[in-house]
Amino acid sequence: MSAVTPLKQARARSQALFDTAEQLAAEFAATAVERDRQGGTAKAERDRLRQSGLLNLIIPGEYGGHGLDWHDTLRIVRLISRADSSLGHLFGFQHLLLATVRLFGDQWPHYYRETVKNHWFWGNTLNPLDTRAKISADGQDWLVHGSKSFCSGATDSDHLIVSAVPEAGDKLVIAAIPSDRAGLRINADWDNMGQRQTDSGTVDFHGVRIYDHEILRRPGPLGSVFATLRPLIAQLVLTNIYLGIGEGALAEAIGYTRSQARAWFLSGVESATRDPYVLKKYGEFWVDLNAAAQATDYAANLLDAAWRLENALTEAERGNVAIACAAAKVLATRAGLDVTQRLFEVTGARATSAKAGFDRYWRNLRTHSLHDPVDYKLLDLGEWVLNGKSPTPSFYS
Amino acid sequence: MSAVTPLKQARARSQALFDTAEQLAAEFAATAVERDRQGGTAKAERDRLRQSGLLNLIIPGEYGGHGLDWHDTLRIVRLISRADSSLGHLFGFQHLLLATVRLFGDQWPHYYRETVKNHWFWGNTLNPLDTRAKISADGQDWLVHGSKSFCSGATDSDHLIVSAVPEAGDKLVIAAIPSDRAGLRINADWDNMGQRQTDSGTVDFHGVRIYDHEILRRPGPLGSVFATLRPLIAQLVLTNIYLGIGEGALAEAIGYTRSQARAWFLSGVESATRDPYVLKKYGEFWVDLNAAAQATDYAANLLDAAWRLENALTEAERGNVAIACAAAKVLATRAGLDVTQRLFEVTGARATSAKAGFDRYWRNLRTHSLHDPVDYKLLDLGEWVLNGKSPTPSFYS
Amino acid sequence: MSAVTPLKQARARSQALFDTAEQLAAEFAATAVERDRQGGTAKAERDRLRQSGLLNLIIPGEYGGHGLDWHDTLRIVRLISRADSSLGHLFGFQHLLLATVRLFGDQWPHYYRETVKNHWFWGNTLNPLDTRAKISADGQDWLVHGSKSFCSGATDSDHLIVSAVPEAGDKLVIAAIPSDRAGLRINADWDNMGQRQTDSGTVDFHGVRIYDHEILRRPGPLGSVFATLRPLIAQLVLTNIYLGIGEGALAEAIGYTRSQARAWFLSGVESATRDPYVLKKYGEFWVDLNAAAQATDYAANLLDAAWRLENALTEAERGNVAIACAAAKVLATRAGLDVTQRLFEVTGARATSAKAGFDRYWRNLRTHSLHDPVDYKLLDLGEWVLNGKSPTPSFYS
Amino acid sequence: MSAVTPLKQARARSQALFDTAEQLAAEFAATAVERDRQGGTAKAERDRLRQSGLLNLIIPGEYGGHGLDWHDTLRIVRLISRADSSLGHLFGFQHLLLATVRLFGDQWPHYYRETVKNHWFWGNTLNPLDTRAKISADGQDWLVHGSKSFCSGATDSDHLIVSAVPEAGDKLVIAAIPSDRAGLRINADWDNMGQRQTDSGTVDFHGVRIYDHEILRRPGPLGSVFATLRPLIAQLVLTNIYLGIGEGALAEAIGYTRSQARAWFLSGVESATRDPYVLKKYGEFWVDLNAAAQATDYAANLLDAAWRLENALTEAERGNVAIACAAAKVLATRAGLDVTQRLFEVTGARATSAKAGFDRYWRNLRTHSLHDPVDYKLLDLGEWVLNGKSPTPSFYS
Repeated sequence: MSAVTPLKQARARSQALFDTAEQLAAEFAATAVERDRQGGTAKAERDRLRQSGLLNLIIPGEYGGHGLDWHDTLRIVRLISRADSSLGHLFGFQHLLLATVRLFGDQWPHYYRETVKNHWFWGNTLNPLDTRAKISADGQDWLVHGSKSFCSGATDSDHLIVSAVPEAGDKLVIAAIPSDRAGLRINADWDNMGQRQTDSGTVDFHGVRIYDHEILRRPGPLGSVFATLRPLIAQLVLTNIYLGIGEGALAEAIGYTRSQARAWFLSGVESATRDPYVLKKYGEFWVDLNAAAQATDYAANLLDAAWRLENALTEAERGNVAIACAAAKVLATRAGLDVTQRLFEVTGARATSAKAGFDRYWRNLRTHSLHDPVDYKLLDLGEWVLNGKSPTPSFYS
Repeated sequence: MSAVTPLKQARARSQALFDTAEQLAAEFAATAVERDRQGGTAKAERDRLRQSGLLNLIIPGEYGGHGLDWHDTLRIVRLISRADSSLGHLFGFQHLLLATVRLFGDQWPHYYRETVKNHWFWGNTLNPLDTRAKISADGQDWLVHGSKSFCSGATDSDHLIVSAVPEAGDKLVIAAIPSDRAGLRINADWDNMGQRQTDSGTVDFHGVRIYDHEILRRPGPLGSVFATLRPLIAQLVLTNIYLGIGEGALAEAIGYTRSQARAWFLSGVESATRDPYVLKKYGEFWVDLNAAAQATDYAANLLDAAWRLENALTEAERGNVAIACAAAKVLATRAGLDVTQRLFEVTGARATSAKAGFDRYWRNLRTHSLHDPVDYKLLDLGEWVLNGKSPTPSFYS
Repeated sequence: MSAVTPLKQARARSQALFDTAEQLAAEFAATAVERDRQGGTAKAERDRLRQSGLLNLIIPGEYGGHGLDWHDTLRIVRLISRADSSLGHLFGFQHLLLATVRLFGDQWPHYYRETVKNHWFWGNTLNPLDTRAKISADGQDWLVHGSKSFCSGATDSDHLIVSAVPEAGDKLVIAAIPSDRAGLRINADWDNMGQRQTDSGTVDFHGVRIYDHEILRRPGPLGSVFATLRPLIAQLVLTNIYLGIGEGALAEAIGYTRSQARAWFLSGVESATRDPYVLKKYGEFWVDLNAAAQATDYAANLLDAAWRLENALTEAERGNVAIACAAAKVLATRAGLDVTQRLFEVTGARATSAKAGFDRYWRNLRTHSLHDPVDYKLLDLGEWVLNGKSPTPSFYS
Repeated sequence: MSAVTPLKQARARSQALFDTAEQLAAEFAATAVERDRQGGTAKAERDRLRQSGLLNLIIPGEYGGHGLDWHDTLRIVRLISRADSSLGHLFGFQHLLLATVRLFGDQWPHYYRETVKNHWFWGNTLNPLDTRAKISADGQDWLVHGSKSFCSGATDSDHLIVSAVPEAGDKLVIAAIPSDRAGLRINADWDNMGQRQTDSGTVDFHGVRIYDHEILRRPGPLGSVFATLRPLIAQLVLTNIYLGIGEGALAEAIGYTRSQARAWFLSGVESATRDPYVLKKYGEFWVDLNAAAQATDYAANLLDAAWRLENALTEAERGNVAIACAAAKVLATRAGLDVTQRLFEVTGARATSAKAGFDRYWRNLRTHSLHDPVDYKLLDLGEWVLNGKSPTPSFYS
């Protein structure tokens, strides 16, 4: 056992996949600071993911995938996020978007097979809070006009999840289309303080044609209890990214304190590694990250159990998964923000060098942790604790 | 699933014991406020525990006990502590003291059998930091003179763990003797702000005779890697008590907020159960208590695995248990202090009535959480995280 | 300068009064633990306050009082509260109730003079949130029926502030009457976890006659901008009590750590006074208490300026006082809860002895800090910070 | 009164200077995000400061300066830091370096006059913890060889404070020399995550000649009680920079929440400005920043009193200033880190845009707050609180 534990599982099935992921993570880590500086699209790294086969983790073996469960898939998301949380994000969303197809439409076997066959990297233009993209009928087809913001991974994607609302009404329509469909314009306009290589910019729809069979309609968005697992998968993907950022920060801080930090001249100790305040902080970092990790793995196991139930899943069981996910998210957000902010107190002034790039951990987590407000996760949890009320399914809970 | 979960396990073996414990806990809860006021010895409740058979939880079936593992035994400690943490403490120490005999001496089969046969309730006079009790040879026997403080559960005990140091030297000698041995004076001088019915007062030794066969010598105190599990069991007993206090406080707060708390007149909501600040606090309480509980159960499982290894246990494996126990202790202390302090913010001014007795949760936890400083647990954890150093076994780590 | 500073002011006028208060505080401190245990009425100590002349601090010299400003008066409240926050509460309310007469009615010169002449100790039955006491006309007089809770200091008082609402309507009527008026029943039913000698129990009104000239009608409750200073004075009285509790706890902890605390055996230091974690905590305690004290004195000075303006006081100026009071209250609550909870971490397990009585600090502060929720003070502050909106005057803001 | 208060003082003497500073701050703010991106030397802005006359704030009128006290000078440092903490840093160090000359050497009248006459901007190469620069005698002169790190503001400076230690011995020698002295190489190698335009890189000394009259020898570094005010001035400069960063962040957050933030779709409110969690956070931000500001101004006033005492200053009086400075630093660090981290929780995901540049507040404060560890300030405070021991003067306390 070491402070930042290997995430690999004993199970033979997934061992080789964890090995592959670790190799990729090591590669990504080597260039992460430089690519954070550049921003833009991590084309080479995305292609490495395509080639690795890791994009098929969650697809069952009968469709050509690896058939991993969510527990292991999410641990691999975490592992990649330790090295580079932009890539961890894009990689995590691959599985979320495949789950979206699986849960919202009955065309999923087709998309599973095509994803494996063509090494598809999926991109996202589903942002339910941005209602500017409108859909309207055009004969037997549909047309989308408008825009969407926060479209992570749309750039360089092969297939896209798109969403739009009718001109009148607010019922979200979700479809899966090729990323090169005419009328789509994926803008390279993501320039943020964090998660800089997620291409989470805007996409414009200039009369983008959607064929009827591309619409995910049976059961449709959040259309069954089983389908409401989708936002919980989204929340757990985020949680694993946050946790990965925190664990990556801790690992890098340990290395720095050991090799480069200096004891404060008034501390009375020879080495920063013997400073009582430094040691206590490391204890706090780990205790909190480890508690978050335990809660996250626990939630993933609950999710797996719920996932296997498919349409037998009850609202109460779904509620339990939601509560476990919310708790894990709160813990990972809090522990991650703490370690990414305070790691500098255990590494010292020289660790602020741009070359070291340690601030990227905080910038990445701070940016991504705003996806939805953690206060409202705590409110959801409070409703359940005090009033026995499970979270109402939405795209964020 | 509810906010304060039943601790009962699915396993048939332990189900009935959990049922018994729950019934006792309900009984104890009914008089906890009044008994906290009185202090002194909970004679009737101690006898109920004697009659219940729960004092034999950890003793294997072949010696007449219930053969529960530590995971379940400690959960029952937690369950009792929810209702009354003084009784939880005495009850938890029963198992710790039996483990002391098991780990430090080879006479344990005798003591296991006698405990079952005679419904012994064990008491404690082992306080390694108080070195006033001295042992010296008297022919083939030994004599102890001096005093010990913090002797929880010595009053009304049947058998005692005693300890003393030689006049010259500091090697602790530990023995198991009947509580009515001549020369022992167990003082009724425990009058503290919390844990008021633990009888954790002083014991005076006026030439107390110890027979050589009563000394736990093979392997002796912390005398083998296996024997160093003793302080970890102590830490986990404490952790489960702290957690029980926190969970008991949460459960009682929920009931009060639902039935009696009033919405603040400026809150704009009809009921305290709809106040956004109240709800968020409940979310926070539960997230933290639940994380502590997960970490505690995880540590108990590691302990059980280590316990089963007996003398095959390695230092590295012992180190992993120690780290897990330290993390759980930190989390339970922090979560417990938070909920016992802030529960008043979700129940309101009228909840400070002495009749409600809600302050006992904080007083009990605050008192017991000083057993050993949590800062030094974090230091131990920091040493492990940063320097890869497992905690050095002592009576507190 | 020392950590818990003498509060005495350089001004000659008040020097002797501070000396008197310090002597009384020392007396009160000597019996505070025992009286906390007893609860009930601190009759002897109340009489000492009557004899001391300190009940007239805020009454101008021309009416026979000491003419102190609020800054000094509140510092004396704080000084008494360091020793005994129950007495600090009753003493603080004396001045608040005199201010109530001053601000709400034009009869105040009479009441000022009578207070001085008769050494009146004022009691409180004004609880705007408890609307059970009803007032109705009876000829030219009025009659009150019903009850009030949280009537601090009504027992053994000489004169009372009473309040009631008409059967129809919710406009609070406030009057000043002798405490021995027929029909008044002051119950000895305050038995709470903290502030145990404040007699904050219930008062029953069995047709209590109020003469018309006893009603505070010009300008009436919160009846002018100047009159809305009343709740701010109340808030500052509370704040000074909280601060006094925190400072008293700090002073007592310092004495204990110096004389009795032991270094933790794993700390590597000779004395608890050299422990790095203990020292850091003392630094934190003081930084926070001192910041709260600076904010509190600042608010008192603003209050004094507003008080001097009388009816020239504008809403904007009143708003500034309200903001300063709210900030001070937040800081004092937070700092006080922190030091009263964590003082045990710098004094150790033996400091939980009932004889030491250190838990009374937390119990007193925790109880009194629920007077009105600090979350809503922060909300008020947020409204002002973000939206530029001053707190709407009410009995709590 | 508004949440982020104008710092201008009523005193006529300084009013115009505050006006000038506010105009400059507004200019600097307009380009701060872009210049943070670029890093390097803020040549144009430094020249604006030179032209403004603000570099002479602390120089008494008789030497041609503005004769401001520290209280006002530091408030102007804070004001500039709100807009741009790199410039605030360089500007604050101007006054610190002038104070260094004043306190350590008797040549100060000359340097005061020359500074005014030539609009000198002073730079720093005094880093007592970096002992690589060595000084040795060369006839009647001295030569310096070696390097110094963290030399803020050396680039584009007119005059420099330099320091070095003898080859044998560790007694720091400090001198004031022209920045264009032969053998000096000021490297443009500062590329850090924050404070990016402070040019805090390395300076190499290749046999740099120091004339004897340039050495600050009477009384020399920390050579008298009065001279030990220098590190306290340094600490207060830092504190005002931290506070400025926090206040700048708060001001910008307020503007953004009002104009651009969106209510969370589950919040039940129309506007983010009505969200209960957002409002509470704004309350917390302000309470803490305001408490830090009060403590900072208080410390500045103590410093001014001590400054006026010159050689009559006692160690005890110096100790009081040190304690006040340490408290202010702790409060400003904590409040600043809190608001710069959490401001995103009141502005939302879209506020992470690189164009907004809100992360610079955190990066700047996080970088600068590592100057010396705040834990050791708390240790100093603890020593004083618990053991009555004033901080031992050093370059950091």
